[in-house]
Amino acid sequence: MNRFIFQADSLRNFVEEMFSSFGIPQADCKLAADVLAYSDEHGIDSHGVARLITYYELLKLGRINCKPHLKIVREKGSVATVDGDNGLGLIIGPKCNEIAMDKAELHGSGWVSVCNTNHYGAAGYYPWKALERDLIGLSLTNTTKGVAPFGGREKMLGTNPIAIAFPAGEEPPMIIDMATSAVAYGKVEIAYRRQRSMPLRWCMDQNGVLTSNPEEMIHGGALLPLGSDSDGSGHKGYCLAAMVDVLSAVLSGANWGPFAIPFAIQLGIQPERQVGKGIGHFFGAWDVSGFQDLDVFKRSMDDWIRTMRKTAPLEGTKEVLIPGDPERLAYQARTTKGIPLDELVWENICKISRETGIPLPSEHSH
Amino acid sequence: MNRFIFQADSLRNFVEEMFSSFGIPQADCKLAADVLAYSDEHGIDSHGVARLITYYELLKLGRINCKPHLKIVREKGSVATVDGDNGLGLIIGPKCNEIAMDKAELHGSGWVSVCNTNHYGAAGYYPWKALERDLIGLSLTNTTKGVAPFGGREKMLGTNPIAIAFPAGEEPPMIIDMATSAVAYGKVEIAYRRQRSMPLRWCMDQNGVLTSNPEEMIHGGALLPLGSDSDGSGHKGYCLAAMVDVLSAVLSGANWGPFAIPFAIQLGIQPERQVGKGIGHFFGAWDVSGFQDLDVFKRSMDDWIRTMRKTAPLEGTKEVLIPGDPERLAYQARTTKGIPLDELVWENICKISRETGIPLPSEHSH
Repeated sequence: MNRFIFQADSLRNFVEEMFSSFGIPQADCKLAADVLAYSDEHGIDSHGVARLITYYELLKLGRINCKPHLKIVREKGSVATVDGDNGLGLIIGPKCNEIAMDKAELHGSGWVSVCNTNHYGAAGYYPWKALERDLIGLSLTNTTKGVAPFGGREKMLGTNPIAIAFPAGEEPPMIIDMATSAVAYGKVEIAYRRQRSMPLRWCMDQNGVLTSNPEEMIHGGALLPLGSDSDGSGHKGYCLAAMVDVLSAVLSGANWGPFAIPFAIQLGIQPERQVGKGIGHFFGAWDVSGFQDLDVFKRSMDDWIRTMRKTAPLEGTKEVLIPGDPERLAYQARTTKGIPLDELVWENICKISRETGIPLPSEHSH
Repeated sequence: MNRFIFQADSLRNFVEEMFSSFGIPQADCKLAADVLAYSDEHGIDSHGVARLITYYELLKLGRINCKPHLKIVREKGSVATVDGDNGLGLIIGPKCNEIAMDKAELHGSGWVSVCNTNHYGAAGYYPWKALERDLIGLSLTNTTKGVAPFGGREKMLGTNPIAIAFPAGEEPPMIIDMATSAVAYGKVEIAYRRQRSMPLRWCMDQNGVLTSNPEEMIHGGALLPLGSDSDGSGHKGYCLAAMVDVLSAVLSGANWGPFAIPFAIQLGIQPERQVGKGIGHFFGAWDVSGFQDLDVFKRSMDDWIRTMRKTAPLEGTKEVLIPGDPERLAYQARTTKGIPLDELVWENICKISRETGIPLPSEHSH
């Protein structure tokens, strides 16, 4: 597959203008572009401009409210529930994360559960933003069903990610961003496109039998929860997915479990019933200085990180990584050498450019 | 192995008297006995009276402060750090959990990071207590090193559990309590005692090679993180263990990672250096009614639970369980039919009885 290389800023501008062409206020377009750019610049290719075409089509179909009035529907000190008024998750997400961070600075911690929202990009973006304010940030979201609960053989839960970030001092921060399924659905799609077989612990077919054939998962099968099966403690991945679903969607009054609204229009079979509004997110922040002197904490984090890196590595492994290392290395490469896009992603960008008249982003100069 | 059956109350009294024999105040003895009884009554055999001998020996050696003055060393609204004054985790834990719950009722959420404490029993006890107050409860703790970080081949982290509980209405509550390793160390010990081989995804030997031989793990090997290896996304279990370690121990100023103080005296090789005080716990609570009408939430939880139970089951599986089901069934059986103890556990109880003069607990009448 051909790869095209683009300047980070140029892609960011294109995204902003695309959202702007639907009459979304400029400041909101900047926010949304920032969320997508986080993924492209950090090597999380599944969650950046690769998804622009889906947002674009949802907007064209009028499925998203371009001028949402975000409303705090319930509040008590450090916690609140927000109704996202069916706005873009890429806009509702950052605003609700901000509310959680403001609460953390005021009350020591802040927690916002959100209903009536849509796909919010990479979960890791939100705690990464909290680092700017020396907070520990957390974000969760429920997503379209794709994962079988432990003991079951049908999709009932999303890949429901957990993201959390901890500031450090001289060392780079620790940033965790992980789906609670054995793998993300994107990895199954990649195996399918490349006609490769998958490890036997990722998926089941429509009969609940483990399969290494991506096609058998895609046609009526399901992803396995983290841990996969009983030998690997697959019930634990199910527990984590359940926790994310409840905090994001049951608590806020969004659609939970199998009723979460599908993001991609192609997968657009609507759930049989609605049990709430939109999908749900959950944002949190803790003020480090409410627990510990900030400098002491950062020095301890540095020590923790250096200690863990010194672990004797497995044969064939260079060193033990710290959560966030792979994304940080990608960031260093991509902000200097440009962002590579797959042919299919580039074709979709060309389509948007043709239809809207927005000039194509510039290729990176070599 | 022979099994002896005992009345729940009679075991609880024995435990209370054992702690009392060291001059621990009566109310604290009751608390500690309540934490251990939770495990025995809920079928979590590894964390109940099976560990009484270790607490007993630690107390005999004067390693535990019998009259700790728990001190809030830092505080800001919804968050605080507590120094447990080297008290029993079974006493410090419930008191700090109480502080988190009180804060939740006042500020919408409450968070307490704890240093200078010891083993606190089953993590699930604490969120289970929060259910009495209609709160969502959470507890984490770091533990003695036993798990290799992903990519490494030596023990650097504990089995660092995550426990969280959600109240429901007519349905029983959802209670999650899971180690962030592929399995708990107790399962390796059981395989060792029974001379059974283990699934290949639980452990590595001292060279970092996966092994199904429990002896090879016990002699210099390590547990794998949840997800096990790269095919199963073992980096995710490592991320979760890191998160628990930082929130419990780095944040509070306890010993983190490989420096966590060993609980069992038999494993009592002291870490090469101390980086803080004792081990660390982390307690949290959210006030449901700060986010959502409590009755609406409970009805939604009932709906969630019923929906998940109706998932088409895997062949050979009766139905999809809800987190907490196995423990609830054990509770129903054990509070009516008595608590079965292994011969070794019973021998240790007899030893304590001989040495202290406390009468043995009564066997269950058949």
